[in-house]
Amino acid sequence: MTSADSAAAAGSATAADCAADVGLLTPVGAGCAVAGLTGDRAYVRAMLDAEVALTRAQASIGLAPEPAAGVVAAAASAPGRFDPRDLALRARSGGNPVIPLVADLTAAVRELDAAAAAHVHRGATSQDILDTATMLVASRALATVLADLARVAAALGRLATTHRDTPMAGRTLTQHAVPTTFGLKAAGWRALVLDAYDRLTAVRSALPAQLGGAAGTLAAFSAFAEAPDGAVPERSRSGDGRDLGVRLLAAYTAETGLAEPVLPWHVLRTPVAELGGALALAAGALGKLAADVLVLSRTEIGEVSESTGGGSSAMPHKANPARATLIAGAARRVPALAGVLYGSLVAEDERPPGAWHAEWQTLRDALRTVGAMAETAVSLAEGLRVHPDRMRGNLDATHGLIVTERLVAVLAPLAGRAEARAAVTRAGERAVLERTGLLEALRGEPDLAGLVPDERLRALTDPTDYPGSAGALVDRALDRSGHGRPAP
Amino acid sequence: MTSADSAAAAGSATAADCAADVGLLTPVGAGCAVAGLTGDRAYVRAMLDAEVALTRAQASIGLAPEPAAGVVAAAASAPGRFDPRDLALRARSGGNPVIPLVADLTAAVRELDAAAAAHVHRGATSQDILDTATMLVASRALATVLADLARVAAALGRLATTHRDTPMAGRTLTQHAVPTTFGLKAAGWRALVLDAYDRLTAVRSALPAQLGGAAGTLAAFSAFAEAPDGAVPERSRSGDGRDLGVRLLAAYTAETGLAEPVLPWHVLRTPVAELGGALALAAGALGKLAADVLVLSRTEIGEVSESTGGGSSAMPHKANPARATLIAGAARRVPALAGVLYGSLVAEDERPPGAWHAEWQTLRDALRTVGAMAETAVSLAEGLRVHPDRMRGNLDATHGLIVTERLVAVLAPLAGRAEARAAVTRAGERAVLERTGLLEALRGEPDLAGLVPDERLRALTDPTDYPGSAGALVDRALDRSGHGRPAP
Amino acid sequence: MTSADSAAAAGSATAADCAADVGLLTPVGAGCAVAGLTGDRAYVRAMLDAEVALTRAQASIGLAPEPAAGVVAAAASAPGRFDPRDLALRARSGGNPVIPLVADLTAAVRELDAAAAAHVHRGATSQDILDTATMLVASRALATVLADLARVAAALGRLATTHRDTPMAGRTLTQHAVPTTFGLKAAGWRALVLDAYDRLTAVRSALPAQLGGAAGTLAAFSAFAEAPDGAVPERSRSGDGRDLGVRLLAAYTAETGLAEPVLPWHVLRTPVAELGGALALAAGALGKLAADVLVLSRTEIGEVSESTGGGSSAMPHKANPARATLIAGAARRVPALAGVLYGSLVAEDERPPGAWHAEWQTLRDALRTVGAMAETAVSLAEGLRVHPDRMRGNLDATHGLIVTERLVAVLAPLAGRAEARAAVTRAGERAVLERTGLLEALRGEPDLAGLVPDERLRALTDPTDYPGSAGALVDRALDRSGHGRPAP
Amino acid sequence: MTSADSAAAAGSATAADCAADVGLLTPVGAGCAVAGLTGDRAYVRAMLDAEVALTRAQASIGLAPEPAAGVVAAAASAPGRFDPRDLALRARSGGNPVIPLVADLTAAVRELDAAAAAHVHRGATSQDILDTATMLVASRALATVLADLARVAAALGRLATTHRDTPMAGRTLTQHAVPTTFGLKAAGWRALVLDAYDRLTAVRSALPAQLGGAAGTLAAFSAFAEAPDGAVPERSRSGDGRDLGVRLLAAYTAETGLAEPVLPWHVLRTPVAELGGALALAAGALGKLAADVLVLSRTEIGEVSESTGGGSSAMPHKANPARATLIAGAARRVPALAGVLYGSLVAEDERPPGAWHAEWQTLRDALRTVGAMAETAVSLAEGLRVHPDRMRGNLDATHGLIVTERLVAVLAPLAGRAEARAAVTRAGERAVLERTGLLEALRGEPDLAGLVPDERLRALTDPTDYPGSAGALVDRALDRSGHGRPAP
Repeated sequence: MTSADSAAAAGSATAADCAADVGLLTPVGAGCAVAGLTGDRAYVRAMLDAEVALTRAQASIGLAPEPAAGVVAAAASAPGRFDPRDLALRARSGGNPVIPLVADLTAAVRELDAAAAAHVHRGATSQDILDTATMLVASRALATVLADLARVAAALGRLATTHRDTPMAGRTLTQHAVPTTFGLKAAGWRALVLDAYDRLTAVRSALPAQLGGAAGTLAAFSAFAEAPDGAVPERSRSGDGRDLGVRLLAAYTAETGLAEPVLPWHVLRTPVAELGGALALAAGALGKLAADVLVLSRTEIGEVSESTGGGSSAMPHKANPARATLIAGAARRVPALAGVLYGSLVAEDERPPGAWHAEWQTLRDALRTVGAMAETAVSLAEGLRVHPDRMRGNLDATHGLIVTERLVAVLAPLAGRAEARAAVTRAGERAVLERTGLLEALRGEPDLAGLVPDERLRALTDPTDYPGSAGALVDRALDRSGHGRPAP
Repeated sequence: MTSADSAAAAGSATAADCAADVGLLTPVGAGCAVAGLTGDRAYVRAMLDAEVALTRAQASIGLAPEPAAGVVAAAASAPGRFDPRDLALRARSGGNPVIPLVADLTAAVRELDAAAAAHVHRGATSQDILDTATMLVASRALATVLADLARVAAALGRLATTHRDTPMAGRTLTQHAVPTTFGLKAAGWRALVLDAYDRLTAVRSALPAQLGGAAGTLAAFSAFAEAPDGAVPERSRSGDGRDLGVRLLAAYTAETGLAEPVLPWHVLRTPVAELGGALALAAGALGKLAADVLVLSRTEIGEVSESTGGGSSAMPHKANPARATLIAGAARRVPALAGVLYGSLVAEDERPPGAWHAEWQTLRDALRTVGAMAETAVSLAEGLRVHPDRMRGNLDATHGLIVTERLVAVLAPLAGRAEARAAVTRAGERAVLERTGLLEALRGEPDLAGLVPDERLRALTDPTDYPGSAGALVDRALDRSGHGRPAP
Repeated sequence: MTSADSAAAAGSATAADCAADVGLLTPVGAGCAVAGLTGDRAYVRAMLDAEVALTRAQASIGLAPEPAAGVVAAAASAPGRFDPRDLALRARSGGNPVIPLVADLTAAVRELDAAAAAHVHRGATSQDILDTATMLVASRALATVLADLARVAAALGRLATTHRDTPMAGRTLTQHAVPTTFGLKAAGWRALVLDAYDRLTAVRSALPAQLGGAAGTLAAFSAFAEAPDGAVPERSRSGDGRDLGVRLLAAYTAETGLAEPVLPWHVLRTPVAELGGALALAAGALGKLAADVLVLSRTEIGEVSESTGGGSSAMPHKANPARATLIAGAARRVPALAGVLYGSLVAEDERPPGAWHAEWQTLRDALRTVGAMAETAVSLAEGLRVHPDRMRGNLDATHGLIVTERLVAVLAPLAGRAEARAAVTRAGERAVLERTGLLEALRGEPDLAGLVPDERLRALTDPTDYPGSAGALVDRALDRSGHGRPAP
Repeated sequence: MTSADSAAAAGSATAADCAADVGLLTPVGAGCAVAGLTGDRAYVRAMLDAEVALTRAQASIGLAPEPAAGVVAAAASAPGRFDPRDLALRARSGGNPVIPLVADLTAAVRELDAAAAAHVHRGATSQDILDTATMLVASRALATVLADLARVAAALGRLATTHRDTPMAGRTLTQHAVPTTFGLKAAGWRALVLDAYDRLTAVRSALPAQLGGAAGTLAAFSAFAEAPDGAVPERSRSGDGRDLGVRLLAAYTAETGLAEPVLPWHVLRTPVAELGGALALAAGALGKLAADVLVLSRTEIGEVSESTGGGSSAMPHKANPARATLIAGAARRVPALAGVLYGSLVAEDERPPGAWHAEWQTLRDALRTVGAMAETAVSLAEGLRVHPDRMRGNLDATHGLIVTERLVAVLAPLAGRAEARAAVTRAGERAVLERTGLLEALRGEPDLAGLVPDERLRALTDPTDYPGSAGALVDRALDRSGHGRPAP
C-alpha cells in the first residue's frame, strides 16, 4: 500500500458526508448535549427562528400583513426542507449560508402563499440573521453549560464539605511545601467554577439580537414602508413619534428572547468577544480541576482516582484518568479560539471582509468544546474517588520536613531565628539520610535541647496538625451560593 | 563588515543596560504615562508597598510590634536602595524577584532597627507579594487607561454629535452598500470604547490583594503567633472568635486598597485572566477605531485625516496616519497575550511550575500596550479631521447605485419585485457604462415610466436622503453616559 | 417564541447527525476536496490503513502468519462496517477512537478467520495508529493543497508576466508613496505562495509513521515473539543482528509510505508542530494575496475585481469580493491553531494527558482550512480581473505628488537638497489646492526656473515613467521555478 | 496607604528609566547573553550597521563617493551619540525609530564632513533599515542560541549514553505503563533539541537583508543616479547591463553578511514568520525537557533533581526545580508570539499599517525568551542529577503490574489470550490488595499453574528486564550528529 493508493481510495469517496465531522477527533464532546445544540442543524434552526422573528416583528408593527408571519413560521417549521450540507455548498458563492437559506425559505413560503414570499427576510441583511442565530445557539448551549457547571460546583461543594479537614500535602513548584486540606483544594476548584458560572451568566443575559439592514442604519425597513409618494402607512406610525427602525428593533428583539442592543452591532463585536473570553475562563476553570486531578492521580501519588478509569487493552492494570485527560486536552484549545474572537473586534467598515467570517466556526468550536468539558466535568466531579489514606501517607514523603516552616516559626523566639533554622535544617537532613522521622532527629539536636517539651515537639511535627486557616477558608468559600442555583 | 564582526562588537557591550528595553521597538507607548506606571521600577515600588502593608497589617492585629511596621515603611521608602537590574539578576536562582527584594529590605530594616528585621515578610510567600504588587500596578495603570478611554469616548461623542447627519457611504465587504452617516460611525466607535471602559472598570474594582502563605492556608501567620507551648497571645485573639489568618487577610487587604479575596488565589487566577480579557476588549475597541481611520484615510478615500500625519523624509507629500498605524499594530498583539493569561488558569497544585511565571511579563506587556493605545487614541480622536466634502463626493462613486436598495423597495409594489429589480439593475449598468447619473438612466427605463413623479425619483436617488434610523440611533447611543465620567 | 421554546425544540433533535458539522459555518471549504480528505471518514480509513500496515509488517518479518495480514486487510476494506459517529461515541470512555475501532476490526477479522483476530493491533498502542493515520491524512490532503498552490502560483506568474510593466500606485501606510507595477505585486504574491509550497513540500516529505508500543520501547512486539521459554522464533531473527523492534519499525514504515522516524515520536512532536507552522505560512501567504485583492477591490480603488462577485439580494449593484473575503477570514484562524500545535510540543512523560489530545481537531482544522483557502485561491487567482485603466487613473489621485521622491532626488544636485525639497513641497501643495497638475505647479516655482528643460520636467512628473527596478525584479522572481512543478 | 497614594508616588517618578524593562519580570533571561544581544542598544547598533552598509554599497558601485562611506562609518561608531530612549521618544510622531536615528546620524556625519551628509540613508526607506537591523540582531542572537542548544544536546547525549540501560517506569496519561529507560528519555530530549537546532540553523542561514526603497521598486537609488538630463553616470553603469537597483541590492547584502533576497520583502514576510515558527519549535523542545524534569522532580517521584535547587526562606527543606520552572513558564509564551508573527504575513499594500509594527517587539520578545531558555537549559542539562535508585524503587509502585503487558503476551499462546489476561488481572489485583509482589500472586493462579517454569516467571515479572528496543533506539538516536557541531 502506498500513500498514493489510499489517497485515491479516499478521494473517490466524494459523497457529501465524507467531509462531515461527527466527533471522531473530539471524544470529549461526542454525544454531549452541547454538541447537538451547536451542530449545523441547530444553526439552521436558529437562522430560521431569526427569519420568523423578523416577519413576526414586522407584522406586529404593521410592516407586514399578520398572516404572512404565520405562513413564514409554518414554512420554517417544515422538517427536512433545509439541508445543512446543501446550504453549505451553496453558501460558497455568496460567502455566507443565509443567502441560500433565504432562497429556500422563500420558495417554501411561496408554495404556501405566493403573496407572503415578499415578506421573507424583507429589509434585512444576511448578518442580521446569522448573528441573531449565533446568539440563539449560544444562549441555548449556555443554558446547558450553566446547568452542568452548577452540577460540577455542587459536587465540588460536597467534596469540600466532606473533606474540610482532610490533611494532604500542599505542593508548590512540584515540591511538598506545607500541609493543606483536600477541602480547601476542592473549595478552590468550586470557586473557580463559580467564577466561570457567574461570568457566563452575565454574558449570556446580555446576548443581543442583531438587526441593522445593509449597513446598520435600518434604512430598508423604512424604505419598504414608504408609499411611492414618500408617505408612511398609518399602521406603522408610532403614536409616540418613535423612529420606525428603532421600534422594529425592539419588536424583533422581543420575538427572539434575546437582549436589545443599543445599536446594530455588525462591527461592534463586544458580545462575541466577551463570550469568547467567558468561555476561555470556563475552560481554564475546568482545566485547573483536570490538571490537579491528573497530578493527584499519578501512580506515585494516588490521592484521587476517577470513578472508572479508561482502560488499556494491552495493560489490564491501567486505569487512566480519561475524563481529566480529555478536559485537559480541550482546555489547551480554547484560549487560542478566544484570541481569534478578540482579534475580530478589529472589524473595519460596516461589515468587514474576514473578521466576521473568522468568528463563525471559531465561536462554535469554543462553545461546543466548553460544553463538552462541562458535561465531562460533571461525571469527573460527581464520581471522583478520594483516598485520604494515600494523602496521609504522602505527608510523610519528606520524612517530616513538610512541617519545618512551623518549627522554625515556633522555635525562632526561643533559639534565635538563624539558630532555629540551622538546627531544623540539620535535623531534616538527618531525618532523610537516616530515615528516622524528623521528631527523632530533632530530639537529638543539642541546640534545641530542653527548649520545648517533648509532647509539644511531637505536636509540632505532626503534619496533620498544621492546617492553618484552611477550615475557616473552606467555610467562607462555601458561603458563596452556587449549590442550589436554578439552571437559568 | 560581516555579521560575526558586529556580533563581537555588540557582544562586548555587556554592561547592565545593554539588555534594557526602553521603548525603541514600541513607539506607540514611548513616553506614555502607563509605560512609566508599568516599568520595573513601578513593580519594585509596588512590591515594597505590599511588604509594608503586610507588616502594618500584622501590627494592626497584634502579630507584630507597632514600631516594626514604621521601620519597615521607612526602609522601604529609601530611594535608590532597590535596584531593579540588580534584583533581576539575583532573581534567577530562586526563580522570582521577591526573594532578593526581601533580602535587601531586611538588610535595610536591620540597619534601622535590628529587632524589626524579623518582621519583614514574616509568614508570607513570594507569590503573596508579587501578586499583590501586580494588582497594585494594574490598578494604578488602569486609572490612567480609564481616564484616557473616557477622553477618547468624549471626543468621539463630540464627533457623533457634530456629524449626526453627515452622510457618507456605508461599506460592506469593501464595497459601497447603502449610505450611512459619520455620526453613526463615531457613535459606534464610542459605544465600543465605553464597553471597554465599563469592563475594565468592573475588573479593576475587583482586583484582589493576595495573601496565603506557603501553600495558601495562611498557616505560618498563626505559627508565628503561637507561643512555644501552643498558646496564642492575647492581642492576636479576636473577640469574635474569627480565624486569625482570615483577620490578617482582611487587615492586609485594607492596607493595600485592593479588594478582599474570599480565598487566597495563588492558583485561582480569575483576576489575571479577566484582566487579560478586558485588556483584549479594550485593544479591540481601539483597534476598530484605528482600522476605520486607516480605511477612511486612504489616498483614494480621504474622508478623515489625522491632525498631523507622520512624515516621510523622501516623500514630502506623505502624511501617514501614524497614530492609527501604531494603534493597529498594537491591537494585533494583545489577543495573543490574553490567550497566554487565559491559558495560565490551568495552574496545578498550590503553585504551578510555569503557569504563574508565564503571567508576569505577559500581563505587563498587555497593560502597557493597551495604555499606550489609549493615550495615542486620545490624540487620534481629539485631533481627527473629518472631510464631509470627500464623504459627499465618494457617495457618487457608484454613479448612484448606492441607493438601489431603496429604489427596489419603493418600486417593487408598483412594478413587481422582480421587474423593479431588473429595471434598477439595468439602469445601474447604464449609469456606470455611460457615466450618466442613475437618475438619468432610470428616466429612460420603460418599465418604470410614469410610476413615480420625477421629483420623487430625484429624491429616491439622492444618496444624502437615505439615512434610515441613523439619527435616532446616534441619539440613543449618546444617551449612554460616558462623557463626564470621573476618572475612577 | 422564547429562547427556551426553541431550545427545547432543538434539544429534542437528539439524532446522531444533530451534532454534525458539514460545513455550514465554513463556506470557504464547503465542497472542497480537502474537506473530504480530512473528514471523519478519511480518518477512519487512515486508521484502518495503519492497522493493515502493522499486521502486514509483522507478517513480513515473521511476527505474524502471512494469511493473517490478508484477512485483516480484507476486513478493513469492508465498506460501511466502521461508522465514524458510532466510533466517536464509544471513544469517550477510553479517551481515543482507536480503542473502539480495534474492537470493531477485531470482530470483523474474527468473522473471517478466528485465528487471525489475535494479530489485529498486536503489540501496538492507540497512539501508534492515530498518529500514523494523522500523518496519512495530512500527506493525502497536502498532495491536493500543493497541487492547488502550484495552480495559484502559475496563475500569479501569468499575471506578473502580463503586467510586468503595468504602472500602479505603490501604497504604504494607506497612502500613495511612489509608483510600482502590478507585475511586481503579482510576482510578490507568487513568491510568497512558492515559499509556502516549498515549506509544505519539505514538511510533507518528512511526515513519519508512528510505532512505539505502550511506552515507546517497541517492547511488546518482542514480547509476542518470545517463546514461553524466552527464545525468539527463527523467522523473526535477523541475519544481521538488527534489533527486532527496529526492523519492525522499518517494515511498518515501508507499508505506510511515510518517512521512517529515528525514534518513536509519541512525545517528540516535531512533525505536528512543523506541519502547523507550514500551514500557518501557507495561510499567511494566501491571506496576503486576499488582503491586497480586498484593498484593490474597494469601490473607490477598483483596480482589480473577482471574476464573479458574490451578490446581494437587496443591492443588485454589489459585487462582493467573496473569495478574497472567505480567504481573509480563514487566514485569521490558522495562526491560533498553529500556536496550539506548537504548545503541544510540551508533552510530558511517554504520553501526555492532554497535549496530544489537543492536537487532533486542531491539526485537522488547520489542514482543512488551508486546503479550503488554496482551492478558493485557485479560483481567485485564475479569475482575477485587472483594470489597468483604474490603476492609471488612481496614479493621478495625488495630483502628481506620487513622483515627488524622484523630483527631489533629481533636482537636489541642481537646486540644493533643502531648496529642492521645499520647492517641490510648495508646488505639490499648490497642485492639490488649485487642482492643477504638479507639472503646471512646478513650472511656476521660481527656485526651479530654468534648472531643467520642460520636456525633462514633463518626464520627471510622469507617474508611469518611474518603475525603478520593478521590471528587473519581476524577471528575477519569475526565474524561480514553480510554474510547472508536478504535484508531489 | 491607599492605592491612590502610591499611584501618585509612582507617577511622580517620570524620569526616563521609569519605563525601562531591565528583566525584573523575566528572571529566566536576566543576565543572559541573548538579553544583551536583543536589547534596545543592540538594535540601535544594528540599525547603524545597516546605514553604514548602505552607504558603503552605494560607494562600491559608484552611487556615492568612496570617502562618504568612511565618514558615515566613523559617525556611526561614535559611542553614546545615539541614545535608545531619546530615539524611542522621538520615534512616536513618525511611527518608527529609524526616522530620528537618521536625523542623528546625518547630524553626526555633517559635523565630520558636510558633503557626506547627503549620502546618509539616501534612497532608502525606514523599513529597509529596520528590517535589516532586525535580521542582524536575529542572526547575532541565534549564534548564541545555537551554541547553547549544542551544549544542551551534548549534555543530553552524555546522559543518554550513561543511562542507556537504566530502567525506569514509562508513564502514559500519568500512569505507569511499561518500563522504559532513562537513556531513551534523554535521547528523545536530545532529538527534539537537535530538531530545533537544525531548523534554527536553516532559518538563520536564510535571513535576508532588506532593500527596496519607498515602495519596494528600488527606484530612488536610480533616481539619485540620474543626471538632470536623465543620463546615468558612467561609474554606476554595469558592464553586464544588470539593473542598477539589483546590483545595489547585491552589494548591500554583501556588506551586511546576510542572505540576498530575490525581491524586497517589505510585505513578503516569510523570513520573520519562519523565524517565529523556528523559535516556537525551540521553545517547545526545551519546554518538553523542562516538563519532564518537573514531573520527575516531584517529591513523590524524585528520579531527577536540579544541581542546586531554588530555595525557600520559610521552608529550608525545599529545593525547587527553579530552572525547569522558568523554562516551563517561558515555553508557554512563545507559541502566542509566533502566532502574532504568522498573522503579520497578512500585510496589505507595499507597507502595511500595523502588521509590520506588530512584529517588532513580538519578534524581539520571542528571540530573547528562547535565548534565555537555551542558556538556562545548558545549566539544567549539564547539572541534572539522576537517581537510578529512585527509578528502580518507583518501578515497584504498581506491585509488579508494570510488566503485565509482557506477561499477557507471553502467556497468551499457552493459556489462551482471554484466560491469560484474566489470570494476570486477577493476580494483579491480589498483588495490590495483599501487598504481595506480582510474582507471588501469579504463583497462586491455578490457570497458570505449570505453564512456565518458576525461573522464567521470575524473569517475566522483573521490571528491569523489559526494555524492549530501548537500547537499540538510543544507539540509533545518538548516531545523529550534534555533539561536536561547531557553533555556527
